[in-house]
Amino acid sequence: MASVLDGTAIAQELQVQLKARTAQLKESFVDLAPTLAIVQVGDREDSAVYIRNKIKTGEAVGLVVRHVHLPHSTTEEDVIDAVQTLNNDPGVHGIIVQLPLDSEQPIDEATVLNTISPSKDTDGVHSFNAGELAKKGSGNPGLVPATPLGCLHLIDRTGVQIAGKHAVVVGRSNIVGRPMAQLLLRRDATVSVAHSQTADLPALVRSADILVVAIGKANFIQGDWIKPGAIVIDCGINAVPDATKKTGRRLVGDVDFAAAKDVASFITPVPGGVGPLTVAFVVANTLKCAEAVTHSGPWTLRKLKLNLLRPVPSDIEIASAQRPKLVSQLANEIGLLPGEVDAYGKYKAKVNLSVLDRLKHRKDGKYVVVTGITPTPLGEGKSTTTVGLAQALGAHVGVNTFACLRQPSQGPTFGIKGGAAGGGYSQVIPMEEFNLHLTGDIHAITAANNLLAAAIDARMFHEGTQSDKALFGRLIADNKFTVAQIKRLEKLGITKREPSELDDDEIRRFARLDIDKSTLTWCRVMDTNDRFLRKITIGQAATEKGFARETQFDITVASELMAILALTTDLHDMKERMEKIVFASDSQGNPVTANDLCIAGALAVLMKDTIQPTLMQTMEGTPVFVHAGPFANIAHGNSSVVSDKIALKLVGEQGFVVTEAGFGADIGMEKFFDIKCRASGLIPSAVVLVCTVRALKMHGGGPTVTPGSPLAKEYKHENLELVSKGVCNLERHIQNATKFGIPVVVALNHFRTDSAAELALVRDRARAAGAIDAVIAHHWSDGGAGARALAEAVQRASLLPSAFNLLYDIKLPIETKIEIICKEIYRADAVELSPLAVKKIELYKSQGFNDLPICMAKTHLSFSSDPQLKGAPTGFVIPIRDIRASVGAGFLFPLVGEMSTMPGLPTRPCFFDIDLDATSGAIVGLS
Amino acid sequence: MASVLDGTAIAQELQVQLKARTAQLKESFVDLAPTLAIVQVGDREDSAVYIRNKIKTGEAVGLVVRHVHLPHSTTEEDVIDAVQTLNNDPGVHGIIVQLPLDSEQPIDEATVLNTISPSKDTDGVHSFNAGELAKKGSGNPGLVPATPLGCLHLIDRTGVQIAGKHAVVVGRSNIVGRPMAQLLLRRDATVSVAHSQTADLPALVRSADILVVAIGKANFIQGDWIKPGAIVIDCGINAVPDATKKTGRRLVGDVDFAAAKDVASFITPVPGGVGPLTVAFVVANTLKCAEAVTHSGPWTLRKLKLNLLRPVPSDIEIASAQRPKLVSQLANEIGLLPGEVDAYGKYKAKVNLSVLDRLKHRKDGKYVVVTGITPTPLGEGKSTTTVGLAQALGAHVGVNTFACLRQPSQGPTFGIKGGAAGGGYSQVIPMEEFNLHLTGDIHAITAANNLLAAAIDARMFHEGTQSDKALFGRLIADNKFTVAQIKRLEKLGITKREPSELDDDEIRRFARLDIDKSTLTWCRVMDTNDRFLRKITIGQAATEKGFARETQFDITVASELMAILALTTDLHDMKERMEKIVFASDSQGNPVTANDLCIAGALAVLMKDTIQPTLMQTMEGTPVFVHAGPFANIAHGNSSVVSDKIALKLVGEQGFVVTEAGFGADIGMEKFFDIKCRASGLIPSAVVLVCTVRALKMHGGGPTVTPGSPLAKEYKHENLELVSKGVCNLERHIQNATKFGIPVVVALNHFRTDSAAELALVRDRARAAGAIDAVIAHHWSDGGAGARALAEAVQRASLLPSAFNLLYDIKLPIETKIEIICKEIYRADAVELSPLAVKKIELYKSQGFNDLPICMAKTHLSFSSDPQLKGAPTGFVIPIRDIRASVGAGFLFPLVGEMSTMPGLPTRPCFFDIDLDATSGAIVGLS
Repeated sequence: MASVLDGTAIAQELQVQLKARTAQLKESFVDLAPTLAIVQVGDREDSAVYIRNKIKTGEAVGLVVRHVHLPHSTTEEDVIDAVQTLNNDPGVHGIIVQLPLDSEQPIDEATVLNTISPSKDTDGVHSFNAGELAKKGSGNPGLVPATPLGCLHLIDRTGVQIAGKHAVVVGRSNIVGRPMAQLLLRRDATVSVAHSQTADLPALVRSADILVVAIGKANFIQGDWIKPGAIVIDCGINAVPDATKKTGRRLVGDVDFAAAKDVASFITPVPGGVGPLTVAFVVANTLKCAEAVTHSGPWTLRKLKLNLLRPVPSDIEIASAQRPKLVSQLANEIGLLPGEVDAYGKYKAKVNLSVLDRLKHRKDGKYVVVTGITPTPLGEGKSTTTVGLAQALGAHVGVNTFACLRQPSQGPTFGIKGGAAGGGYSQVIPMEEFNLHLTGDIHAITAANNLLAAAIDARMFHEGTQSDKALFGRLIADNKFTVAQIKRLEKLGITKREPSELDDDEIRRFARLDIDKSTLTWCRVMDTNDRFLRKITIGQAATEKGFARETQFDITVASELMAILALTTDLHDMKERMEKIVFASDSQGNPVTANDLCIAGALAVLMKDTIQPTLMQTMEGTPVFVHAGPFANIAHGNSSVVSDKIALKLVGEQGFVVTEAGFGADIGMEKFFDIKCRASGLIPSAVVLVCTVRALKMHGGGPTVTPGSPLAKEYKHENLELVSKGVCNLERHIQNATKFGIPVVVALNHFRTDSAAELALVRDRARAAGAIDAVIAHHWSDGGAGARALAEAVQRASLLPSAFNLLYDIKLPIETKIEIICKEIYRADAVELSPLAVKKIELYKSQGFNDLPICMAKTHLSFSSDPQLKGAPTGFVIPIRDIRASVGAGFLFPLVGEMSTMPGLPTRPCFFDIDLDATSGAIVGLS
Repeated sequence: MASVLDGTAIAQELQVQLKARTAQLKESFVDLAPTLAIVQVGDREDSAVYIRNKIKTGEAVGLVVRHVHLPHSTTEEDVIDAVQTLNNDPGVHGIIVQLPLDSEQPIDEATVLNTISPSKDTDGVHSFNAGELAKKGSGNPGLVPATPLGCLHLIDRTGVQIAGKHAVVVGRSNIVGRPMAQLLLRRDATVSVAHSQTADLPALVRSADILVVAIGKANFIQGDWIKPGAIVIDCGINAVPDATKKTGRRLVGDVDFAAAKDVASFITPVPGGVGPLTVAFVVANTLKCAEAVTHSGPWTLRKLKLNLLRPVPSDIEIASAQRPKLVSQLANEIGLLPGEVDAYGKYKAKVNLSVLDRLKHRKDGKYVVVTGITPTPLGEGKSTTTVGLAQALGAHVGVNTFACLRQPSQGPTFGIKGGAAGGGYSQVIPMEEFNLHLTGDIHAITAANNLLAAAIDARMFHEGTQSDKALFGRLIADNKFTVAQIKRLEKLGITKREPSELDDDEIRRFARLDIDKSTLTWCRVMDTNDRFLRKITIGQAATEKGFARETQFDITVASELMAILALTTDLHDMKERMEKIVFASDSQGNPVTANDLCIAGALAVLMKDTIQPTLMQTMEGTPVFVHAGPFANIAHGNSSVVSDKIALKLVGEQGFVVTEAGFGADIGMEKFFDIKCRASGLIPSAVVLVCTVRALKMHGGGPTVTPGSPLAKEYKHENLELVSKGVCNLERHIQNATKFGIPVVVALNHFRTDSAAELALVRDRARAAGAIDAVIAHHWSDGGAGARALAEAVQRASLLPSAFNLLYDIKLPIETKIEIICKEIYRADAVELSPLAVKKIELYKSQGFNDLPICMAKTHLSFSSDPQLKGAPTGFVIPIRDIRASVGAGFLFPLVGEMSTMPGLPTRPCFFDIDLDATSGAIVGLS
């Protein structure tokens, strides 16, 4: 007499475990709702019963179960569409397409099932999953259909060892028979598969130690076919007439239970055998999918091997020799879902902000900012250190690490400076894609900036050539105000909302922006070094009827829109900032905004995709975000808040995000803290301060360096005196960083000509000045391996308690905030405001813009306003010539001297050497 | 006594068949070399033997077999890299990774095998292929490992029916046992899989009607285990010692052949049994892969169902309601390989020109150009017809069909006109991506155009402020001339190649471009409607030292670079055209070129990716190329040659490419033939001439139409008189098209207000004028179904013999070519050349530019130069004000009157209504 395997009870036990697992998952990841979606086509009653069971058990365990019910008229495209929608929905973890598809339209079932994303394939019916199961492998076979998993669980409950037994599976469906055979084979049973065409089924069944039946014929397997002592698992559910039942029928299995139970050792009943287990494993599979998604442990990153050559070749040669991973692969490795990633070519992709929502439950990683001493023409290697440190952490220390970089302007790439992807064996690849159009963000900013500029001049022109009434009539369409126009009415204090109700004065006030030409601050932009556009006269054609005026082009990265992109947090915020852009005052001194021009929506449309950071990779295959690149003088010079935020979630609590601040620490780092961190609310864990012995020698009074000329001997031989004199610059930056309460690690980028004594001197002085450590780094020549010590020091520093504080209170008067920065950071004796600056401070206060942070526009070549004053000067005054406002971006920028916002081309620009190999498509000469 | 299955002989037979198939494939597809790549890691002798056999047989059959041999030190990344390179190589059809991977490094075999592209997986080892085999299915199981295929073939050769038999497979490897069991199960055998852990193997083997053994143990299966009459297939190859052999060993199978052959009915020997079959099926699988790639029959396109609403909603509503297919899926459906496609987001992709090389053996499809009558403000619907016709052909008639469209400028999208993706139920989707940045081509053109402009002014500035020597010194780097500089030396007739050898005069001539400012033709561009840039003064800043000059901005699509993109054929040609760009004359009247500025390489780098057409789709899921959009007045107004060429290959001989020509047929079609087809060498099959009853009424003298005002009653009610008068415009265009020897089909776009009599009148007159047919079309309201009759007429027309001829010989004098166009196409009485035009003709002749085609810059609103002259005017003169040259693009453009190349913004531009829903990211208000 067989033991009856009580599926209901066993499933109950499983359900308790699953409920605990679900609860644990939800506890670890607040707001995570493990979700199963079931797609049903048509109205078959049996399908409805199965789905009800899945919903009931799923919900009991704590899952969300969505029932996507499509009508009987559904086409194949409709089902595929529904499945793809679920594939792309990060809120859905498992997908079941309930079979059969009950439609009057022809639908190819196999096509539909292969549409399901393999990672959400709860039923294990995608060919990839079926193949993973069908292939040899001791490990985890991925997602396997629930019924065979349930059967295997029941067999395991008997305690009988499977290996070596003869298992006979009767039936060969895709969701029971076939995968059952595979599971048993993986457990080392000898497996036979029988079916309707099997010649002598009774004989085969008689040889089965383990019998699994799923053939769909009531009581088909006879008791005397069963081998005595066999385990019998019956997957059949067949309704047979039974007058004793209220429904007139009862359910039986494929095995004649009554007869079989006398022969078998273990047997499952129907109902209450396999059925409840199937449902339990549907839930288990869904949970497995959800757990896989939320998994935030170390990435399994395929690292790229470096082939270190000596002497170190040119940047483009090194970069071109390395084949990047496909970006789809990288995205997968770092836990991004396919729906969150839009590839742009093979090696870069935009990442959707929805990932922030999906991972909102996850703790942020450590946040490290790379900054430098006061820059010299020798180059200290800040970007290279950012990339090298990320390679060291990610590919050598082995912690999840993202580098976040700014997108460079194409102007310098073709002009003087060249690209900005790092250097040597610490670069972002493909380097040419990094340095050229990337994913088009700068072009989109150019388009948006110039649409606003064109609209301003066109509006002034139309106001100047039309009567109030004509203007008003043209501005209103369909006799209705637009949303933006209603905002303008609110601003003007007009409460009427019907165009016809406005009186003449209101019409005039509404229709005329009445721009004071002399206050216009909005310039056209171009991502080209075009010096001839620094000052121009526009509107000289006859068609513009004498409305000519002087203006200028800036380089695109100097646009306020770029600063907005770098500081914004989502599309809502971006659009709001665009509405707030002030481009002039009216003749009454009121600010005129982009919203007044009804253009903010169009600007947001043009820049819609720019808000998504671009994913790339380092030379060693670790991930990089490239996003936004605002000017570091008239703007804040830091990459985007959005990319840092996404990266901090993706790396997880134990991971690192390495981001870079432009210019020296007096400017870039100060703005990073006081503008960027203030806006984002993120708290940094460590500052990496980059310096070189050579640059410190220059700060110590070393001879002038002219690009192209040979380097003076002082820089090539030991000179402890110069180092000792110049290290004051480093010391002051260390002290400044410490003021913000963040531990500092000095990265001392090594040159062949540095002597041991020079390096030791810098190390000692840096530590004495308050740095946690000062580490010699070789990542330019050696890649991440050369920055391993630096990475470990950064790791140690990031574990120290931080006491982050901002430098000033935002509510202080504008002039006070300026003074705090100048005295505390630059160490000026005083600030000298020009009359214009004083007037502007009053204007901005009156316009309500006092409570904005300060973005100093000062030379980066000295703590002072004089680029010649190296080292750590004192006893100077900071003169403020003018103050301007980027209201949309959210800061005021005092101008210390003249700031060029449009570079020029030299006699022999970089483009002389840039060429395309038309045969291979390769780019040469890019640096 | 068993029959011995002679594998060698059977394989020979197969080889003959395979050789014939290979020959046939090569004959159908000239230059196609079916190629197998075998990746080997390390130096195992057994692997070497297997690989040699595959190479030998492969080559005997006519395959190319590439042996990719990696060293013993190979890492997992290296192998993956090698496999991905082969995946992306269109010249490789099948890939085998020879197992085991013999490396000193840890390599996960499963990961490597799953890297192989499933469509090139000759060994059938990718999980997707394993899963396709493991799932039920009567059809083709995709790619299956060769050994089990060979075994099955041998079993089939016995003539014994497999269904119902008991098949025992001994062994469970991924490439023999497991797939063997699946194949037998698919043939309805009862299948048992045995292995090392099987408890009573002899007993199981004794029950086998068919026995397949692949267990790797010499003579393991005993003769008395065999069921009498069984078929025995022995996959084992084991070396055993044999002193009688020269090598000291011989090969035996897993079955004791001598004993077994007395019991079995059929048996395979070792060697000479399964082995040769394995090799034959490796070849067969490779050939299958190659045949799949070259398959040029009808596409299996997943069509998108239209949900036709009444009244027809707005374009953006219709477009947004339709979910496009993923572009990767579309690319796959039309036979593009993954390596040929670079996705830009989910719904658009750039297609690599390498596809032209891969398909060079394939015959072109039919080439249909859509053009129109002389445009009216009523809109005739040319783009909509292009899309609707493609939907009709592709989704309803069911022939492979591509639509090729121009990329619209963003200027009009935000200005007056709105987008250009078609309309109603005949649109390209996603419509907003089509109308916005697309894949950045226009932005790249802007960047390249403006780099050249900045370089011209910077160079004039540097020449004006430096001595010859200083200038020369700065232009030369590393004491070497660049390639571009050597070309300049050649142009100047200087034969010296060492900078130090040049004398003072040569230095001056080389270093000074000596640009005559008054001849400058290169303008800066912007993709924005910015009227204030129509005439400007640049260089007014103090830093430009008084070098100010007047110039202008054009809209980007008016750039010569856009015309170059539209006419170029590959990167070589594009770079050459860029080198040839003439932007001014020097003071001696010689043309100054982009090559003289050493900038052509940089321009090519900036526009490198633009040369790839962008793949999108119609509302019904048929493919569309969007590529290039040169102005139709000062340029030729047609989409790119490259996209048409690729599309013609992809659709194949029976397919259709529908492309559009800008403006009316007098301009767009004439330029399509005389400029675009002349450049491409492609021969069109049919002209579709679009008209509407309403537009013809206007040509017949109907009242003026003002946008925004209600339409006059003449256009809303039957008015046969106006139609009858106006149809002369259509007739003349039909006659013009006929002059080129191409059959014409008139598409009569239907409006609700058209009367049956009006439609009949137009139809009759069109046929009488020489049109093959005139068909009423409803694709705007009904999608492709509404243009089915049109599609069928086009199909008929394209089968007619065509006798294509160009209008004029390129060698004729410039003035004669102009005259031919004006008299033959416009029907002018005469041409009147201004003195300036006469002077320019002489200049261009002297500069060697006579032999360029003519690109008339004339109003599109009349056959004449007077936009008011509707219908088919006669008795007029065409005045030529000026002639300009686009030498890089390769045409001269005579200016008939003033052509605005920079549109303006109206008082209430489109952007007032364009907005972003910041929550969903959806765009509203785009039209």
